[in-house]
Amino acid sequence: MDHFDVVVIGAGPGGYVAAIRAAQLGMSVCCVDAWQDEQGKPRLGGTCLNVGCIPSKALLESSEKYHEISQSLGEHGIVVEGVSLDLAKMQARKKTIVNQLTDGVAHLFRKNGISSLHGRASFVSIKNEMTTLKVTHEKNELLVQGDHVIIATGSMPRPLPVAAVDNHLILDSAGALSLHEVPGRLAIAGAGVIGLEMGSVWKRLGSEVTLIEAMPDFLPTADHQLSKEVFNVLTRDEGLQIQLDTRLEKVSRSGNQLQLLCEGKSAGVLEVDRLLVATGRMPCTEGLCLENVGLKSDMRGMIPVDDHCQTAVKSIWAIGDVVRGPMLAHKAEEEGVAVAEQIAGQKGHVSFENIPWVIYTSPEIAWAGKTEQILKDNGQAYRSGIFPLRANARAKSMGDTRGFIKILADQHTDQVLGVHIFGAQASELISEAVLAMEFGASSEDIARTVHAHPTLSEALREAALSVEKRSINY
Amino acid sequence: MDHFDVVVIGAGPGGYVAAIRAAQLGMSVCCVDAWQDEQGKPRLGGTCLNVGCIPSKALLESSEKYHEISQSLGEHGIVVEGVSLDLAKMQARKKTIVNQLTDGVAHLFRKNGISSLHGRASFVSIKNEMTTLKVTHEKNELLVQGDHVIIATGSMPRPLPVAAVDNHLILDSAGALSLHEVPGRLAIAGAGVIGLEMGSVWKRLGSEVTLIEAMPDFLPTADHQLSKEVFNVLTRDEGLQIQLDTRLEKVSRSGNQLQLLCEGKSAGVLEVDRLLVATGRMPCTEGLCLENVGLKSDMRGMIPVDDHCQTAVKSIWAIGDVVRGPMLAHKAEEEGVAVAEQIAGQKGHVSFENIPWVIYTSPEIAWAGKTEQILKDNGQAYRSGIFPLRANARAKSMGDTRGFIKILADQHTDQVLGVHIFGAQASELISEAVLAMEFGASSEDIARTVHAHPTLSEALREAALSVEKRSINY
Repeated sequence: MDHFDVVVIGAGPGGYVAAIRAAQLGMSVCCVDAWQDEQGKPRLGGTCLNVGCIPSKALLESSEKYHEISQSLGEHGIVVEGVSLDLAKMQARKKTIVNQLTDGVAHLFRKNGISSLHGRASFVSIKNEMTTLKVTHEKNELLVQGDHVIIATGSMPRPLPVAAVDNHLILDSAGALSLHEVPGRLAIAGAGVIGLEMGSVWKRLGSEVTLIEAMPDFLPTADHQLSKEVFNVLTRDEGLQIQLDTRLEKVSRSGNQLQLLCEGKSAGVLEVDRLLVATGRMPCTEGLCLENVGLKSDMRGMIPVDDHCQTAVKSIWAIGDVVRGPMLAHKAEEEGVAVAEQIAGQKGHVSFENIPWVIYTSPEIAWAGKTEQILKDNGQAYRSGIFPLRANARAKSMGDTRGFIKILADQHTDQVLGVHIFGAQASELISEAVLAMEFGASSEDIARTVHAHPTLSEALREAALSVEKRSINY
Repeated sequence: MDHFDVVVIGAGPGGYVAAIRAAQLGMSVCCVDAWQDEQGKPRLGGTCLNVGCIPSKALLESSEKYHEISQSLGEHGIVVEGVSLDLAKMQARKKTIVNQLTDGVAHLFRKNGISSLHGRASFVSIKNEMTTLKVTHEKNELLVQGDHVIIATGSMPRPLPVAAVDNHLILDSAGALSLHEVPGRLAIAGAGVIGLEMGSVWKRLGSEVTLIEAMPDFLPTADHQLSKEVFNVLTRDEGLQIQLDTRLEKVSRSGNQLQLLCEGKSAGVLEVDRLLVATGRMPCTEGLCLENVGLKSDMRGMIPVDDHCQTAVKSIWAIGDVVRGPMLAHKAEEEGVAVAEQIAGQKGHVSFENIPWVIYTSPEIAWAGKTEQILKDNGQAYRSGIFPLRANARAKSMGDTRGFIKILADQHTDQVLGVHIFGAQASELISEAVLAMEFGASSEDIARTVHAHPTLSEALREAALSVEKRSINY
């Protein structure tokens, strides 16, 4: 039976990064992963690379270009006679990118001397802190032992009882990424990150898109001033229909159409061609046989861990979507690195305070730190600075002046507590804000730092100046 | 005669920002500016807004879209039938953007109670630290007095004796921004920032572009590893012809064509339709009558100032392109703020160490801090980390994986000494690097900061990890 210093279960962004970091630190590492493509070929990278962040960004990029060409090039003096969509080719591009990146992970595994096992892992036993796992692939079984095990099995779409996914008419996020034709009318249950991103893709390619959201508030965890502006722009400019406070009660089919019975604020029957279920994700722990090593998942199906991702069993760790905290690839990566370093005897640590959130709508949404409503709830005194992108020269040159950057800073110390961005390139602009918060920067620190002209990043600085009511350009 | 606490000469990015900051601090401010449009209407904003950063970015944006549509949408599955260029409309869009922004400055002046005088300012006298200036516009003359004067007159294209600009066949940068037709063959004297940006615009719109550069090295002040990669990409992918170590000796005309006699490495006669002279800029001090207040410009035409932008006369300051340091809008702005604050008795200060440079080619170039060759020359021990964008998931999704991010850090303290970016969105990505350097960050600080996935900013973090030879994804 093969023995490793570390066995990682799952080769998504948490698992593969943990495996590489552990290998860099001199440990022998095995990574077990069950993902395979339609041909049954192993595909590392997990949800993120295969059916999540990467394919969605590829389609978001392509669909945005398509939409732009169809709509807004006239003012640039670019005259286009006819535009048509070759969806098969757009999907092929997406697939090529996914394949290159998943192949890239396999290459990194080889480069770092990581053993890659294809199959499903389950716990067999633990004895003297040595864990034995079974790896099953089709009819083959294999046992491996690890001094340490890192569970990085990720998450899967949460089923919606009234709408069982068949990936023909009723889709999960993977299905929505792989459509072979543009649905005439697409409904999406859930107006969260996945619903908004997939809704944006298909709307731009021509679908009529309706999002059905059970919650009364739109993007309730985002800063409310931001959510409100996002709602306005996405419904007004981008043409998404978003029905809040509305529950999907029943789905019936007739031929190739779906009738959605909705209750609540926008009660009624909605007839559509496809329905995407994007009402959340749940941790993947089924089949792990946690009980064989004395572990069990909590009420939400998550594996309980401490602040350092250690489970109740000292040599077993869990990271990413399968544990508490936001289900974000970069959060999983951080935890993967921190756990590998702790196993190596270092002081790995994840700072949960400043993990950025990004939603790749058009324009993009990104934030880190506290929202205004949280500060109010906490009774923390703060000042707010805001700068609209319509006063930013780069945004004007680009022709996308929607949105704003908002900074919240402590009333007394001026320390930056939260940064909220809705605008072009928000996903990239948030990185400076996160670094600033990691350094405990004051808004004045950002305000006093030279920002290149003309750039969108100047708007972050102007928002910082606005905290002291001394923006220059607004 | 009107009297002001502060008189600012020039309403470019240095001057207008200084004027606003001074007004915010409670001072009475007058800003004198001579710029006018073709109709003789005053236009605030100086070179940057009228014939520099802003119109160039507008045309860079439009031309990049045009180029992309003509070349690279097929792989996205976007089938475009016929594309043609309406240059008049592209130019009209540029003009609208410029007008909105220059009108914006006028609005900001009104909002901040700044008196705006249209005309050319010259010094008359100084007595008891009170300066008298004459403002001339056509046949009108007006005297104003100021306790403090800020000279922010900027710079103008440096003439090239062998190629007198007529803005018909031989253009300066303003002329190159306003062409009514795409030149078949465009030569550019000087392969610096302006030459590369204008060359990119017209190449994308269809010109055959040849840059003639007298220096043997390409972008010699940039990090040499970066310059080399930029040279390769711009000549190979972007189709710019760049002839280094070659001097323009003589220009002759025959009809609507120019014959350029070149000496040096690419000696010979080059026949072109237009020539852009972009061999540098020189400070604007002519007509200021500096001698009337006991000042004079130095050998290079610059006004000597100390580290705080104070001239030899205590109450007269000078900022921006008219003084030492890089000719960059954001450097001028910083100085403008610092001088206004010093006049108000505060401790304004400009940190020259970390002023970012940006060149808006495709992909973009941006850097801050020290280059590898400077560290070598200084005998400073350093480590270098580099991450190629072809290993970045966002770059792959976008379809532009050219370039890299490079970080130089002190060998012993790990403090970040320089960051050099060649790649998509470099202009925005540099802001995090500048903030990090302002905080005296180590490469490990950047490496330990969560970066959202998938973003280009992850490449900065990977470059930081690479300093310790522990990149995850490469």
